[in-house]
Amino acid sequence: MPSKKLRVLPLGGLGEIGKNMTVIELDGRIVVVDTGLMFPTAEMHGIDLVLPDFSYLRERADDIEAIVLTHGHEDHVGALPYVLREIGVPPVIYGGLLTIGMVRSKLDEHKLGDSAPLQELPPGEKVQRGPFGIELIHLAHSIPDMRGVLLSTEVGSVLMTGDYKFDQTPVDGRPADIPRLAEIGKEGLLLLCGDSTNADRPGVAPSESSVGPALLRQFSQCGGRIIVTSFASNIHRVQQVIDAADALDRKVALVGRSMRKNFNIASNLGIAKAPDGIFIQPREIEDFPDEKIVVISTGSQGEPLSALRRMANNDHRDVQLHEGDTVIFSATPVPGNERAVNETIDRIYEIGATVITAKDAPIHASGHGWQEELKLMLNLTKPRFVMPVHGDHQRLRLHAALAEAVGIESERIFRGRNGLPLELDAESAEFGEDENVGTMYVDGIDIGDPDDAALRDRREISADGIFFVVVPIGDDIAVAADPEVIFRGVAFVEEAGALAEEIADLAEDIVEEAAKAGNHEPHLIEEDLQAAIGKLVHQRLKRRPMILPVVIEV
Amino acid sequence: MPSKKLRVLPLGGLGEIGKNMTVIELDGRIVVVDTGLMFPTAEMHGIDLVLPDFSYLRERADDIEAIVLTHGHEDHVGALPYVLREIGVPPVIYGGLLTIGMVRSKLDEHKLGDSAPLQELPPGEKVQRGPFGIELIHLAHSIPDMRGVLLSTEVGSVLMTGDYKFDQTPVDGRPADIPRLAEIGKEGLLLLCGDSTNADRPGVAPSESSVGPALLRQFSQCGGRIIVTSFASNIHRVQQVIDAADALDRKVALVGRSMRKNFNIASNLGIAKAPDGIFIQPREIEDFPDEKIVVISTGSQGEPLSALRRMANNDHRDVQLHEGDTVIFSATPVPGNERAVNETIDRIYEIGATVITAKDAPIHASGHGWQEELKLMLNLTKPRFVMPVHGDHQRLRLHAALAEAVGIESERIFRGRNGLPLELDAESAEFGEDENVGTMYVDGIDIGDPDDAALRDRREISADGIFFVVVPIGDDIAVAADPEVIFRGVAFVEEAGALAEEIADLAEDIVEEAAKAGNHEPHLIEEDLQAAIGKLVHQRLKRRPMILPVVIEV
Repeated sequence: MPSKKLRVLPLGGLGEIGKNMTVIELDGRIVVVDTGLMFPTAEMHGIDLVLPDFSYLRERADDIEAIVLTHGHEDHVGALPYVLREIGVPPVIYGGLLTIGMVRSKLDEHKLGDSAPLQELPPGEKVQRGPFGIELIHLAHSIPDMRGVLLSTEVGSVLMTGDYKFDQTPVDGRPADIPRLAEIGKEGLLLLCGDSTNADRPGVAPSESSVGPALLRQFSQCGGRIIVTSFASNIHRVQQVIDAADALDRKVALVGRSMRKNFNIASNLGIAKAPDGIFIQPREIEDFPDEKIVVISTGSQGEPLSALRRMANNDHRDVQLHEGDTVIFSATPVPGNERAVNETIDRIYEIGATVITAKDAPIHASGHGWQEELKLMLNLTKPRFVMPVHGDHQRLRLHAALAEAVGIESERIFRGRNGLPLELDAESAEFGEDENVGTMYVDGIDIGDPDDAALRDRREISADGIFFVVVPIGDDIAVAADPEVIFRGVAFVEEAGALAEEIADLAEDIVEEAAKAGNHEPHLIEEDLQAAIGKLVHQRLKRRPMILPVVIEV
Repeated sequence: MPSKKLRVLPLGGLGEIGKNMTVIELDGRIVVVDTGLMFPTAEMHGIDLVLPDFSYLRERADDIEAIVLTHGHEDHVGALPYVLREIGVPPVIYGGLLTIGMVRSKLDEHKLGDSAPLQELPPGEKVQRGPFGIELIHLAHSIPDMRGVLLSTEVGSVLMTGDYKFDQTPVDGRPADIPRLAEIGKEGLLLLCGDSTNADRPGVAPSESSVGPALLRQFSQCGGRIIVTSFASNIHRVQQVIDAADALDRKVALVGRSMRKNFNIASNLGIAKAPDGIFIQPREIEDFPDEKIVVISTGSQGEPLSALRRMANNDHRDVQLHEGDTVIFSATPVPGNERAVNETIDRIYEIGATVITAKDAPIHASGHGWQEELKLMLNLTKPRFVMPVHGDHQRLRLHAALAEAVGIESERIFRGRNGLPLELDAESAEFGEDENVGTMYVDGIDIGDPDDAALRDRREISADGIFFVVVPIGDDIAVAADPEVIFRGVAFVEEAGALAEEIADLAEDIVEEAAKAGNHEPHLIEEDLQAAIGKLVHQRLKRRPMILPVVIEV
């Protein structure tokens, strides 16, 4: 009989591999590591969210031993409500202290809080779930309580790093657990699935704690109000902004719902701490002199409805930007957000306020390790096999090259794809059959796939518009009343109006011909109408709007 | 009587000021400098092009003395066919040799070639048109024959720099005409409108001629095929690629329509030169060994239909990328194109080919001068007044700061907006009344404004889809046949299908109520239908698709 196989299936991500979700399988039992989502691009007309395609799990709900979450970022936990609703509730959901806290509040918003078996698993504590020993390894990232996930099985052990950096001076004073990683290397690691996000950056990522002094330097040069924008989940960043404000005797207002929510969760858990009396309400900002104010705001990515974007558009209720204000971007644009961020920055300049970005001063530090850190992880854990994850094809290749650089033969390095499972036993590893999974779209209250007819239609209509042609026919298949031609989104209304009459006349002719030809089938007549009208419209407008003929019998 | 005023009105640009077009006016007579366009963003559903709003010129056609073009880039000449068609043909259109050559071929494509009075105006040669003395000043840029425009009037003279750099070693050996600029400074310049594109970059832009050797270094390390992508209009860049290929005894294939077109125009004018027999046809590429091939391709901006994008998507007729190929991006992404470029690069990595960008090697040089060059321009021309142009608000402010740094008082520096005219006489300058002009959209064969109903409809439909409800009524205002409910782009089809029946029933009820209420007006009934159906749909789908009821009398 064939030897037992451990199966590691990366899912999700837009252009990134194994970013949002990974399904690990042995003996028909399953552990799911992370359940994240992505945000849609402008091309995804009206789509709200993009989920990894977890339909693979649909018939497997009973096989799931546990869901394990590495950290609280949306791209690692955001899909959890949808997984619980679509797949079902697993026996247990593990994560770090803050991760569980943030997820609990998220599930409460989705009215799923009570049902979910959320459980904090302290780092270093090992639990057994079916064939899987589960242990969380403390690592550093741009959110507290980041944990790598070690799964130990009779076949061998797998370490999913999640997003990590080796920060020797993290803000909470708890650097990545290098001793434990070294032990894992000694015990023998079968597979390492490592973060590749910064595989293109030589050296070591700057420490998060280097950001605080840089912010203080900037603050001390500001005579007016200071508005700092950053990721709301970056608790340690927000903490450092508060400390810098305190050092200069400025009050702090948290602006933006997620900014207030995340800080409250963190301070209730003792992860963040603000000096007594430093906070003021956003509506109180105007009551204080400009030089006494620091605003910490959402919107570092130029999100359309974010607090900062509203300020830049002069339509925020509590903060009206003006000359003398300094807006500090303590974050860098996620690829694809550059335009939105640049637009926001330029509107702030138009108002006359000053902008400081990470290009101007070292006021941001990435949460993902650079090349030397990826090499350190490889050298510490000494994996037999390596599958780089969390990155595009370029970064996966660069991460693979780093693995070779530290002495891992290329045959032991696997560059995967979402939906392509890696199957391992103690001696060998190879890719199994492609599951051909992609992503799923959340649209309003519903979940569908990207090729949904609705989206194809939207793309077509949004390009050239749509013509409706209603032709009422009597029993004798003669036109019972004038055809109605209605159009929307068609360029340009004047010509289209004249064209509408032509279309109505054409429709009558088509119906008469059909009658003569003995074609009594409304849907056949509709096909004729569509072809003929489409031709006419393209001749006139040089466009191909959607043509929607409706023959109704009256 | 008030003194004569010279009027300088910047138009066009998306986020940039005075980028595409400037209208200069004196004594009711007009010179137009540049007639450029911009390319739409993903949010502009189906829009083909964005034009400056030149409706201001509509009633002024007879007042136009000349159109003067600084250089052949689309953002400076692309709107000319639309200006000629909408406004009319001016007495003369001036430009440099290549500019006129490229514009002629463009107008021929629009079947406007014969009518247009295109005329090369050699640099340094001065012509009088109405109250304007017109002279072109040779400058350097990323396209040959770049010219600043000097307009001399009795009130004073204005210099529009266009896009420029002070390249001391340009590929054609003709650096910017510093002696003439110094003379202009001596003669006394009233207003300088200067390029601000790189006002944020300290130092001096690298020379275009530094790119050739850098490309050759990269080429010499490539064992397989080399595919270079760059702007097709950057003739000197293409020339340097050809020279590097020749040095390594490789054949060259020009791929992409505009790449072939522009090079042909330039070589017919003697501006570019290729060694005999170096060119091969794209379809011949496969006939040569990989190490003997250099492909020069369009698509450096990740344009959806460009040759390189097709190659990356494995659907280019002549070039199938494979491992061993090296794709060299000799260009940087225009802001907003980052995502498209990154997607293209990653697809190439997925195929297994290697990618080299300007981040990896000095294989690109900007065509826009950096801070030291902007200061040099200011010091040479000694303008009385300065209006920074060609940049967003941030760069305009930085350019203004440079002007102050070289000793121009802030009162003499004007930070403008598109549509805001600067009015000057020999002693003073001030902004006049805002003309409130924006941009115009080209959609198919038509021109409209951004608030066009068609676009609003497209945005609405593309977000949530559309329900179309046909209700045939008889003379007695009773429903004459079952209402038809058709929907497109609505999420998600299953629910929407069931919902369609509910809507049909609701529509019948509404019509009956209307009949009872004596409401016989189809369009009033349609209003009732829209309100009631909209409410129902939102309850069911939590979305607000467009609701389009049609009551037809049969």
